[in-house]
Amino acid sequence: MEKLLSLIKFNDKGLVPAIIQDYKSKAVLTLCYMNKDAIEKTLDSGVVYVFRRSKGRLMMKGETSGCIQKVKSVYIDCEGNSVLFKVAQKRAACHTGYFTCYFRKLSKSGSFKIEGKPVFDPKKVYGS
Amino acid sequence: MEKLLSLIKFNDKGLVPAIIQDYKSKAVLTLCYMNKDAIEKTLDSGVVYVFRRSKGRLMMKGETSGCIQKVKSVYIDCEGNSVLFKVAQKRAACHTGYFTCYFRKLSKSGSFKIEGKPVFDPKKVYGS
Repeated sequence: MEKLLSLIKFNDKGLVPAIIQDYKSKAVLTLCYMNKDAIEKTLDSGVVYVFRRSKGRLMMKGETSGCIQKVKSVYIDCEGNSVLFKVAQKRAACHTGYFTCYFRKLSKSGSFKIEGKPVFDPKKVYGS
Repeated sequence: MEKLLSLIKFNDKGLVPAIIQDYKSKAVLTLCYMNKDAIEKTLDSGVVYVFRRSKGRLMMKGETSGCIQKVKSVYIDCEGNSVLFKVAQKRAACHTGYFTCYFRKLSKSGSFKIEGKPVFDPKKVYGS
């Protein structure tokens, strides 16, 4: 773990962007941010922990929803500016209920088309 | 394009992170940063343009190497904090010569294992 941490160039806020990809479908699920603690906790526990910028604290991804991400493999980019986690996604990655956060596809007309259907109802999971 | 731009939450430096994924193999290729001009130029031209933070200017991805990325589809995440481009990658995405920038995989021992082989020799492409 020390070698990984030494190669990561954390930004001026102590964070590194982490791309989360579903290891089976290869769908890109989300982009999150990790600090040193989140990297350590993720590697130790085997499930993704993020530094939730809006809450200013470490959280297990899926802490509220149960939609955890089990780490299958970890990569660092050529310059140490980002990391890539391939994960087994439980249920869905997006708080809107969609499997991936990238469910809005730009169409030629300039509007967005929704791809896929929600896997869960966010009102039931998070409350209204 | 206006709708996409209005949905993107550019950060305090006017940038948004963009994940680049190979549309065929679904390999995550790189994470780059785009400003408003880069988004517009990418959508207008159909090839990826980035705001190269180290050079402080707009560049076509592959400007020097010829390894351009032809845009196949564009997605925005649930909160407008990042974008995802699925592209047809010419030759290789990484300046080291590897197809993806994520060619270093963390092994259980804590060291890294190189996945794949370089597609081109960076010395020949960029000079030594």
